[in-house]
Amino acid sequence: MAVPLIESLATTEPLAEAFSDRAVLAAMLDFEVALARAEAKLNVIPRSVAEVIAICAHGAQFNTAALARGALRSGTPATPLVKMLTELVRRANPAAAGFVHWGATSQDVCDTSLVLLLKKVQPTIDRDLRRLQDALRRLAKDNRRTVMLSRTLLQAAPPTTFGLKAAGWLAAVHRSCRRLRANFAESLILQFGGASGTLAALGEQGMAVGKALGEELHLPYPDAPWHAHRDRLAALVCSCGVLGGVLGKMARDISLLNQSEVGEAAEPVAPSRGGSSAMPHKRNPVGCAVTLAAANRLPGLVSSFLSGMTQEHERGLGGWQAEWPIVAGAIQAVGLAATAMAEVAEGLTVDALRMRANIEATHGAIFAERAVMMLGKKLGRDVAYVIVDEAARRSLEQKRKLSEVLRELPEARGHYDPAALQELETPENYLGAAGEFQDRLLESAEQGSTGGPGRAKE
Amino acid sequence: MAVPLIESLATTEPLAEAFSDRAVLAAMLDFEVALARAEAKLNVIPRSVAEVIAICAHGAQFNTAALARGALRSGTPATPLVKMLTELVRRANPAAAGFVHWGATSQDVCDTSLVLLLKKVQPTIDRDLRRLQDALRRLAKDNRRTVMLSRTLLQAAPPTTFGLKAAGWLAAVHRSCRRLRANFAESLILQFGGASGTLAALGEQGMAVGKALGEELHLPYPDAPWHAHRDRLAALVCSCGVLGGVLGKMARDISLLNQSEVGEAAEPVAPSRGGSSAMPHKRNPVGCAVTLAAANRLPGLVSSFLSGMTQEHERGLGGWQAEWPIVAGAIQAVGLAATAMAEVAEGLTVDALRMRANIEATHGAIFAERAVMMLGKKLGRDVAYVIVDEAARRSLEQKRKLSEVLRELPEARGHYDPAALQELETPENYLGAAGEFQDRLLESAEQGSTGGPGRAKE
Amino acid sequence: MAVPLIESLATTEPLAEAFSDRAVLAAMLDFEVALARAEAKLNVIPRSVAEVIAICAHGAQFNTAALARGALRSGTPATPLVKMLTELVRRANPAAAGFVHWGATSQDVCDTSLVLLLKKVQPTIDRDLRRLQDALRRLAKDNRRTVMLSRTLLQAAPPTTFGLKAAGWLAAVHRSCRRLRANFAESLILQFGGASGTLAALGEQGMAVGKALGEELHLPYPDAPWHAHRDRLAALVCSCGVLGGVLGKMARDISLLNQSEVGEAAEPVAPSRGGSSAMPHKRNPVGCAVTLAAANRLPGLVSSFLSGMTQEHERGLGGWQAEWPIVAGAIQAVGLAATAMAEVAEGLTVDALRMRANIEATHGAIFAERAVMMLGKKLGRDVAYVIVDEAARRSLEQKRKLSEVLRELPEARGHYDPAALQELETPENYLGAAGEFQDRLLESAEQGSTGGPGRAKE
Amino acid sequence: MAVPLIESLATTEPLAEAFSDRAVLAAMLDFEVALARAEAKLNVIPRSVAEVIAICAHGAQFNTAALARGALRSGTPATPLVKMLTELVRRANPAAAGFVHWGATSQDVCDTSLVLLLKKVQPTIDRDLRRLQDALRRLAKDNRRTVMLSRTLLQAAPPTTFGLKAAGWLAAVHRSCRRLRANFAESLILQFGGASGTLAALGEQGMAVGKALGEELHLPYPDAPWHAHRDRLAALVCSCGVLGGVLGKMARDISLLNQSEVGEAAEPVAPSRGGSSAMPHKRNPVGCAVTLAAANRLPGLVSSFLSGMTQEHERGLGGWQAEWPIVAGAIQAVGLAATAMAEVAEGLTVDALRMRANIEATHGAIFAERAVMMLGKKLGRDVAYVIVDEAARRSLEQKRKLSEVLRELPEARGHYDPAALQELETPENYLGAAGEFQDRLLESAEQGSTGGPGRAKE
Repeated sequence: MAVPLIESLATTEPLAEAFSDRAVLAAMLDFEVALARAEAKLNVIPRSVAEVIAICAHGAQFNTAALARGALRSGTPATPLVKMLTELVRRANPAAAGFVHWGATSQDVCDTSLVLLLKKVQPTIDRDLRRLQDALRRLAKDNRRTVMLSRTLLQAAPPTTFGLKAAGWLAAVHRSCRRLRANFAESLILQFGGASGTLAALGEQGMAVGKALGEELHLPYPDAPWHAHRDRLAALVCSCGVLGGVLGKMARDISLLNQSEVGEAAEPVAPSRGGSSAMPHKRNPVGCAVTLAAANRLPGLVSSFLSGMTQEHERGLGGWQAEWPIVAGAIQAVGLAATAMAEVAEGLTVDALRMRANIEATHGAIFAERAVMMLGKKLGRDVAYVIVDEAARRSLEQKRKLSEVLRELPEARGHYDPAALQELETPENYLGAAGEFQDRLLESAEQGSTGGPGRAKE
Repeated sequence: MAVPLIESLATTEPLAEAFSDRAVLAAMLDFEVALARAEAKLNVIPRSVAEVIAICAHGAQFNTAALARGALRSGTPATPLVKMLTELVRRANPAAAGFVHWGATSQDVCDTSLVLLLKKVQPTIDRDLRRLQDALRRLAKDNRRTVMLSRTLLQAAPPTTFGLKAAGWLAAVHRSCRRLRANFAESLILQFGGASGTLAALGEQGMAVGKALGEELHLPYPDAPWHAHRDRLAALVCSCGVLGGVLGKMARDISLLNQSEVGEAAEPVAPSRGGSSAMPHKRNPVGCAVTLAAANRLPGLVSSFLSGMTQEHERGLGGWQAEWPIVAGAIQAVGLAATAMAEVAEGLTVDALRMRANIEATHGAIFAERAVMMLGKKLGRDVAYVIVDEAARRSLEQKRKLSEVLRELPEARGHYDPAALQELETPENYLGAAGEFQDRLLESAEQGSTGGPGRAKE
Repeated sequence: MAVPLIESLATTEPLAEAFSDRAVLAAMLDFEVALARAEAKLNVIPRSVAEVIAICAHGAQFNTAALARGALRSGTPATPLVKMLTELVRRANPAAAGFVHWGATSQDVCDTSLVLLLKKVQPTIDRDLRRLQDALRRLAKDNRRTVMLSRTLLQAAPPTTFGLKAAGWLAAVHRSCRRLRANFAESLILQFGGASGTLAALGEQGMAVGKALGEELHLPYPDAPWHAHRDRLAALVCSCGVLGGVLGKMARDISLLNQSEVGEAAEPVAPSRGGSSAMPHKRNPVGCAVTLAAANRLPGLVSSFLSGMTQEHERGLGGWQAEWPIVAGAIQAVGLAATAMAEVAEGLTVDALRMRANIEATHGAIFAERAVMMLGKKLGRDVAYVIVDEAARRSLEQKRKLSEVLRELPEARGHYDPAALQELETPENYLGAAGEFQDRLLESAEQGSTGGPGRAKE
Repeated sequence: MAVPLIESLATTEPLAEAFSDRAVLAAMLDFEVALARAEAKLNVIPRSVAEVIAICAHGAQFNTAALARGALRSGTPATPLVKMLTELVRRANPAAAGFVHWGATSQDVCDTSLVLLLKKVQPTIDRDLRRLQDALRRLAKDNRRTVMLSRTLLQAAPPTTFGLKAAGWLAAVHRSCRRLRANFAESLILQFGGASGTLAALGEQGMAVGKALGEELHLPYPDAPWHAHRDRLAALVCSCGVLGGVLGKMARDISLLNQSEVGEAAEPVAPSRGGSSAMPHKRNPVGCAVTLAAANRLPGLVSSFLSGMTQEHERGLGGWQAEWPIVAGAIQAVGLAATAMAEVAEGLTVDALRMRANIEATHGAIFAERAVMMLGKKLGRDVAYVIVDEAARRSLEQKRKLSEVLRELPEARGHYDPAALQELETPENYLGAAGEFQDRLLESAEQGSTGGPGRAKE
């Protein structure tokens, strides 16, 4: 399915296709066919009927425009679909028509169809998330010693490494994928409850039909129908929201590094990628832009889904009917962000020289903490803080190295090891546990690793 | 445009059409053509060029799938469109190709197109909102004396009239329409700023071109380009949210009145409307359901739009790119709710007998306040409260009229006017200012009335 | 801490206390004391210093008003607190003052304090959730055979049992508690990274200090500092949102059953509970009201937290600073809902007679599906649907039993088993798998059960 | 009222005080006293009673902790307050006790109190918004010719002026203040409807009492009670959200200019402002941080309020009870942002030299559009685009001026005016209508100007 222009920055083609009319229709018909087969197998309906239904369902063209119109009149697309299918079956075999949708209710069709759509789209998203994680692991490993400024509240701060930065992104993506996977697993189950969730229309055979239906559709059979309990889907949508936030954080960081004035990283260059219609020199960080756009839309989608959870009794009025576009929107947003960030991570340009240059441009101000600790051992942290504060001020003013300024301050004299002062501004010597943290993050984020809340307490 | 199945409960056909590829493409091309004409008129580009561009823009088929793909690579659909159009123009007249999109930037195209789409969709929504208001006014007038229970926290409370209820809905719709209209008016303006919002590429003629462009498109020319200031659109989306809440409140009320156990109002009956695939007896309140679904989705959309307002410098990175589907979604949600509620209000069945029966079924408990006031004049409100509380308890327990029980209570004796007690449970006599309030509401909600915050202080 | 009036329907006293100035201050001081002890143990700072710091931290009164003022100037409450504490320590022992907060940064204090607050509040919420689950289990067991209407789109539908309804609530609560517990476990970890997340100020000893600090505070040591990666907290807030939705659904159901016109369940009666200032007869469902209010506020809080996740580099600017009131608000909302629903469930009045009466009041219309299935075996579902539709219409119109009407219809004659028609409206005979579903739900929701996505596929 | 630590970055002292227990209590008591006086004036209750009530209300200490506890049991703080007040009045004058709260209902007290709180807090916010607008006007005027980079998608783009930037912020603030003011005006009205919104308990005198009550409280009397219609408050909360977004956009811009690597603007320096506990050199942009935090929390609050609008019948169950903390939170957030931004704007350091240096650091790449337009006149825009694209690439690579590179390209030769090329990179000559746009924005944003949707169409 072509992506509608109005959503052209909100989804990708495969993700649009995943919720296209074709896909939705196929899922609904799959339900009806599987239901007939399950019921035929258990002699709830005549065996021959199931095949007539299958043939009609798979062979026919359905007028989706009419279906959509019917959906709005019925409050669900399942009602007009069942009517259309029944009509088709009647034409093929009048006696069979009466067994279409036997014992089921509209919500069974809709909810299970949504589950089938989700099941089918999951690998698409997964693939990009794996690409992304592979790329981030590579970036982390390649840059374990690439020093750069850390930045807090967008102010230069003591150095870190780009490896640690990438490992931090990776670990957050990995944790969020783990949660997403768990929520997918929990959600990908059959919904089948009949009119009121008791399967009463099927008499003694309700649960047997349900289990057979689950087998036909390769969906686990849950404890009980969940028509009015949407917590599993809610948790899934939430996981999309959290992963969206994680990808958005990564996009925010890269777009900041990608600023003309910072220049430490750049999105991949490709023909017609990120160009501007007015400005030839521009290489816009479009991957970050669409990811941040996705991260921007997701919290509202999550909120809408959660608001809809307070559904009335056995079938909600308003909450349920709002779900489809919310779930599709959330999946498409997070899927698009995964695609975009995979591409960005795979082709990211890292400019280690510029990173170092940006450190140097601070004239050592970012080593002020280091100087405080150095002087603080003798003078106490708070006395040292005041001295270094003054030195940092002068250093910035005079554009001279902090160590030089400190060397001249009488208050500091004698309170530091001159050799240590000498290498005050060497970033490699002020990385603390960056390398070790990175290694721990990479280890936890091994593909397939179940991870822990981090890792076991040590 | 057919409504996609996944959104079949989220929009109507005209509202889907309003943001269809056809409509979006037309709006973008209208911008380019109008720009060329405005520039030709001012001799910024050769006169002949404008017509070549117009012919190419209007005569050609554009591959919207390719446009959408290009949009994702460029971060905006305008970039690939300008390329395609330029290519077409080049084929028609190589010399003209270079003047396509002269002096404009992608965001000028996108923002102005959005404005054009909004301008075009406004009457569609307006029409339903007028139908709705007309129907509500009629309902109010017809039911000025139709007594019914009021209900607070879903508990029976002293009587009101259905007329006042309908007038309350009407006035809230009217106020919200007024705000929506104001926000539409404020938003329907040209965006034209060029690469950085200064129109520098057009030299001295920037503003003249802008004004001419506005005239071509019948859009007011604003103070200045608003590329990075989204408050007008934000206020518009907010107004959709508020109106959605108002329509949702009405839908909530009607769906509660429509309950089998209450039965005081029912959605209109029409063939294949509100039927159930499993339960023939069902007449589901589908108009209320889709309206509540819209009211459920709107707050999240509003929230997403507001989140995206913190856009970076002269063109945002993430916020701007998220807007189109949010604005379209909000308009479609509120438009669908307006359509649904117009239909519901026009065909609403009001069961005055059932309303009265439901009052009577309370055995007078809802007149407890009245009894308190009656006894309270002599006994004081708090002493009366205790007596009536006990009487109400017994009345409910024994299913006898409150006045009967009260008459037997020695504590009450002598503290009331027997004639007043006699008619304690006559709802018509305990309506207070209901009629007057209704009249005032109807007056304020006159079509075209500018209203006030209510009305002038008296 | 007394609950502020403006939040009197948004929290409880224990939950307000959990985020009170006293609690926040204690958590921040606990961090500083534990840090000093950990560092003293490892000889990073002099041993004696740690005890001076502990004495000053625990013995002093801090001016929280001044702290809050300082927080707004510094962008974090940790900065003014460290200053105050340093001043106190200086007065006690000038040499020790310099070692306060050694090697840490403000965010270490704030994030770890938040974790400590969450750890402390978790059992409070847990207790109510256990009470709630116990009460629901009891309600389910006691009502395994209590028949009632099911209701879809607020319309009467085929019967179910109150036992199944309660079991459905229970299972959803249980699943959501499981997710909440997992997210608590994942979130309750130390944050300790120093100025830029590398612990560089502590040289070789950074990670050792971190581990010792975790031990002091009984918090697991994570892979790496998580200052800019908020996915764990986000997932926790999401879980509050999902559980809030589940509790809201239960409250919605009960408030609907509690309607005067339905009367099937009622919130517990207690002195001054749910009374009205104007209407003595009112017993307002206040537990449901505050739970629904919580469910109403939670999606917005979740959305705000998710929006804040896109934090800049090593310390965000805006996102991080927004977190405290969001997390506190979410915990308080879900905690209040748990308290309220535990109380409601424990004291819920279930009116089985009214439930049956409401079934009977439908004159059998809700058994239309059953009649369709009965006739459908011979006539086909679709032919039967039309016949029963007509019968249901007449039955409702004439207020006669559906079976009676059907018996008179010539189209139906001969197509049903007369004995079956006889008991068409016996709800006990049309419960399908209600009992079995209930048993499965209760089993999955055993306290301590890890459950599954439902249960294993069978 | 001291700001609670947990909210220390979410409000200011005056804004916390505005919703403090003291303020809430005073507002509720003001309602009760005014009601008694209005009723006494109209002889609805004995004249003497009103003064007893006034004396008791103003003279007594109320136990707010008990009130909050009572609120949770009653579902509203008004119920326990009325009880307490009645008790006090009874002790003073037993006969008067019965007339407390005569004819009113809890929601009348709560809603009108909220209105009174809002009315009182409005000038506080207004003051800061005026300060902010004054400062921005000054900044704009002082920098009408201060050239700087514009930035689109965080990439350097053609020059603009800091004056235009400041004027853009100002105009957006001004428009948003206008909307906020209108919504305040619409919301600041009396709520008085009695038990079911008809004032039935007051018989013929309901509306007269209402008008007198409005006069006592200096609040306009609306068309009708609005207990279940929350659109006015919703629109007010939305306006807070929009203004929050506008202030957040300004904070985002300034925080980006404030980056170490950009250095074009800096938040004011003041003792203990923006300092870091670990890093003496840091001057954190705390004003921007708390503003962005507010902008981050507001969309969720708006969304919660909108979700709560679908209130049931004459008094909602869940929606209404959620409102107080949402409204207070929204007002505090936007008020804090106004305070913070006023302070930032008043003390903002603008570094015009750095702005020019950052332009020069692009080596003219940002004038690529200009070059395209220059060459395009002869070559056509698209041919010129390709040439300049190549030149821009080389210019960036070789760190040479774009004009220099262009001069060497044979494809360009002869297609430009050498004098024009000479001054290609002079930013002053490529500002287009920046000055005029600024003037128009300033004019529209005159204090007290009603503005227009921009301005009248020209």
